[in-house]
Amino acid sequence: AEEAAVRAQAETVRRLKQDKADPDEIAKEVSKLLEMKAQLGTDEGKHKFVLKTPKGTRDFGPKEMAIRERAFKAIISCFKRHGAEVIDTPVFELKETLTGKYGEDSKLIYDLKDQGGELLSLRYDLTVPFARYLAMNKITNIKRYHIAKVYRRDNPAMTRGRYREFYQCDFDIAGQFDPMIPDAECLKIVHEILSDLQLGDFVIKVNDRRILDGMFAVCGVPDSKFRTICSSVDKLDKMPWEEVRSEMVGEKGLSPEAADRIGEYVQLHGGLDLIERLLQDPKLSQNKLAKEGLGDMKLLFEYLTLFGITGKISFDLSLARGLDYYTGVIFEAVLLQQENEHVEEPVSVGSVAGGGRYDGLVGMFDPKGRKVPCVGVSIGIERIFSILEQRLEASEEKVRTTETQVLVASAQKKLLEERLKLISELWDAGIKAEMLYKKNPKLLNQLQYCEDTGIPLVAIVGEQELKDGVVKLRIVATREEVNVRRESLVEEIRIRTSQC
Amino acid sequence: AEEAAVRAQAETVRRLKQDKADPDEIAKEVSKLLEMKAQLGTDEGKHKFVLKTPKGTRDFGPKEMAIRERAFKAIISCFKRHGAEVIDTPVFELKETLTGKYGEDSKLIYDLKDQGGELLSLRYDLTVPFARYLAMNKITNIKRYHIAKVYRRDNPAMTRGRYREFYQCDFDIAGQFDPMIPDAECLKIVHEILSDLQLGDFVIKVNDRRILDGMFAVCGVPDSKFRTICSSVDKLDKMPWEEVRSEMVGEKGLSPEAADRIGEYVQLHGGLDLIERLLQDPKLSQNKLAKEGLGDMKLLFEYLTLFGITGKISFDLSLARGLDYYTGVIFEAVLLQQENEHVEEPVSVGSVAGGGRYDGLVGMFDPKGRKVPCVGVSIGIERIFSILEQRLEASEEKVRTTETQVLVASAQKKLLEERLKLISELWDAGIKAEMLYKKNPKLLNQLQYCEDTGIPLVAIVGEQELKDGVVKLRIVATREEVNVRRESLVEEIRIRTSQC
Repeated sequence: AEEAAVRAQAETVRRLKQDKADPDEIAKEVSKLLEMKAQLGTDEGKHKFVLKTPKGTRDFGPKEMAIRERAFKAIISCFKRHGAEVIDTPVFELKETLTGKYGEDSKLIYDLKDQGGELLSLRYDLTVPFARYLAMNKITNIKRYHIAKVYRRDNPAMTRGRYREFYQCDFDIAGQFDPMIPDAECLKIVHEILSDLQLGDFVIKVNDRRILDGMFAVCGVPDSKFRTICSSVDKLDKMPWEEVRSEMVGEKGLSPEAADRIGEYVQLHGGLDLIERLLQDPKLSQNKLAKEGLGDMKLLFEYLTLFGITGKISFDLSLARGLDYYTGVIFEAVLLQQENEHVEEPVSVGSVAGGGRYDGLVGMFDPKGRKVPCVGVSIGIERIFSILEQRLEASEEKVRTTETQVLVASAQKKLLEERLKLISELWDAGIKAEMLYKKNPKLLNQLQYCEDTGIPLVAIVGEQELKDGVVKLRIVATREEVNVRRESLVEEIRIRTSQC
Repeated sequence: AEEAAVRAQAETVRRLKQDKADPDEIAKEVSKLLEMKAQLGTDEGKHKFVLKTPKGTRDFGPKEMAIRERAFKAIISCFKRHGAEVIDTPVFELKETLTGKYGEDSKLIYDLKDQGGELLSLRYDLTVPFARYLAMNKITNIKRYHIAKVYRRDNPAMTRGRYREFYQCDFDIAGQFDPMIPDAECLKIVHEILSDLQLGDFVIKVNDRRILDGMFAVCGVPDSKFRTICSSVDKLDKMPWEEVRSEMVGEKGLSPEAADRIGEYVQLHGGLDLIERLLQDPKLSQNKLAKEGLGDMKLLFEYLTLFGITGKISFDLSLARGLDYYTGVIFEAVLLQQENEHVEEPVSVGSVAGGGRYDGLVGMFDPKGRKVPCVGVSIGIERIFSILEQRLEASEEKVRTTETQVLVASAQKKLLEERLKLISELWDAGIKAEMLYKKNPKLLNQLQYCEDTGIPLVAIVGEQELKDGVVKLRIVATREEVNVRRESLVEEIRIRTSQC
């Protein structure tokens, strides 16, 4: 009876996999299955460990890798177009390097076990390691990118591209420069990458921490509550204003009047016109920080106009960003729901890039507190992967996962040695070549392998061809076959696969 | 007085850095300096944490990255030439996934802190995660590569390229195939990569776990001592035979006679001739395992002869390899000291690649113990980085760390807007372009920036050029300047940098 239950559960898992169900659900059913099997206490007991990746992580198989590399290629080529160097840092840092940088999010940091030595944590982002790198090497001037995995003990939502191990693609400009020129370049980069990846319509929301702080001040938020009220504002992309307001007043003890004043500001969004209007705002214009921020925002919009990208930029007073270390401009790019006659206004389906200015972070690491102003952008690549994967699935396009140009095959038995000789010649000439690892494979199986994996050519050796000093080259797509002299084979393969 | 001591210590550090001393030594002196500073108790006290990367790890700056990417390019292009797909797995695994796979080396595994959830460990190599991936996805047939960092709490020797965080570049073939065909391909791959990277002369030592076990049996080693005696043999590349023998007899309780018999075998190395001789060896030829291993070794050498690479292969009975999971062929590539008249025999300067056959590992993960035979190779890239770095340093070749084709510059003031407009046009046309982030940079500074970073072209905008609808293009190397019509600029830059 119990065995029947196990079989039924196995069938459930099989069906879920076949239907490509939610991976979380599959994982749940698999773990249930394994538990049932373990309890059965058969000879399978010795293998009763759970066969899975850690919670919130996943493997990338060849297909996912092909998609991932496509996205990386677009991003890296943009970063290089803007003259960035590249760096890499260790996956873990001294625990104290990360301490005090992430505010409330610090609880999500992965620590390593104390195995007698330094106390270490996995990196939480690439920005803090970058600042540590600058301070440690006394670098005051660099434009670099860094693509690497970061780690957060967050609640994963893998179907929506939210993982505990995920890639960040960061581009940052460090150095003392004239205002808003590097900041404008960061926004240009986001615009280029999102356009290039053809993810659909998007908008880049922009704000400034100084405008936010000035706004809090004129609304009557006490200084000590700036950061925590800022965290509440940050939730406006996921919660309606009413809820955020009640968090401010209820949990955080803000006066209802102050909250209502904030409520009026945070619904504002627009372009140069809004900036001009706020520069005339009787309250904001009296606040030094807000005035500075608005002045820089105006300059930023002038530069973005020269770049021709203001059409996708929205100055949005509700944008706050969670992290503690921002000091100036902040921004976040969100994809809009595909246009649809039934939907009146485009709806945001999630953030795919974000960043901002953090002029104080490097100084936190420098023994003398010397500051290095920085601005940067982080591309949230996992969500982009999800979108590209879904799109590919829908398109039924076949993705090749290898670049093999030719399969070395034989039509008769006892030709393994000849195949080995030929493939070795091809490899040495730089041709991408495969063969089946069988002594006497059937020709049909060899041709089928090409069909399955998308190999465009087959080089067939046979008794007669060997005598004649030729190789039979078969074009898989057309089934055409031509005899090619052995000494011309490499050149012939190159020509026929030159578009690969 | 104490401040003077700090200054003296700072000077020591500065000098060591200037002299490019041993990084371990520099790190020691830096940490001493920081400690002295902290004890001084000045206002620097608030920044008294140690500014460093964790023990045994390092940052890769732009120069190191340029070298790293060169090496990766050679390796990846070889893996792709052999038709491999690519996968990636998480940096950590469930702790139990790694348990019982590494023998005595398990103590070097990094564990994560128990923060209430699964118990996790950082991966120790890429082979065990690969086997877990195969079993979990029921894959019985794949040829894949995987390039990623692995983690070992080993004693680092960073100047010799031994780190706690280091890259492995793995290529593996999984599946049930005819004997020694995939094994031969793995050796071909090592041969191709080491030749391609031009690391100097090398030899690939080959042996077989079955030959070793057969040898232990006929020498009179009790079954229970096979693995531990194998570990001793593994030390022969670092210790003389006398020491290894005394470990076998003293620590591991082997009889002196058995040790001496082993001593005779392990000094043997050669090619097909040696295999033939051992196949006739009155004792070995009686042992089933040894006979199987020798038979396969003969077949392997036949295939390697067809590949034309036996010149660099040495069948070496002293090769043992540390890891528990090998079951058949094992191999290791070592670089030989550059030929030198004063050195009589080439001396090995260290292992740069290794691998072997592990037919049982996937079965350890499969709930039903189903086996998937595997063979693979791992390229030890860190040591290769060290060699390439040293060579580059010696050659005084200048490495570019960006690919920027053109700097957008201005000869007069008040042209920031024109520079922004032009650079935006270039970016949108796919040209790699930079500009200085200054409103009014001096022309001299702009030209100097090109000299420093190797940018080959400068596009100079000026009042007159704007009127005439041209841009002045300066070739940095020759100082030649030509006026180019604005609409032809992109094409002109492409042509002039087409070799970049």
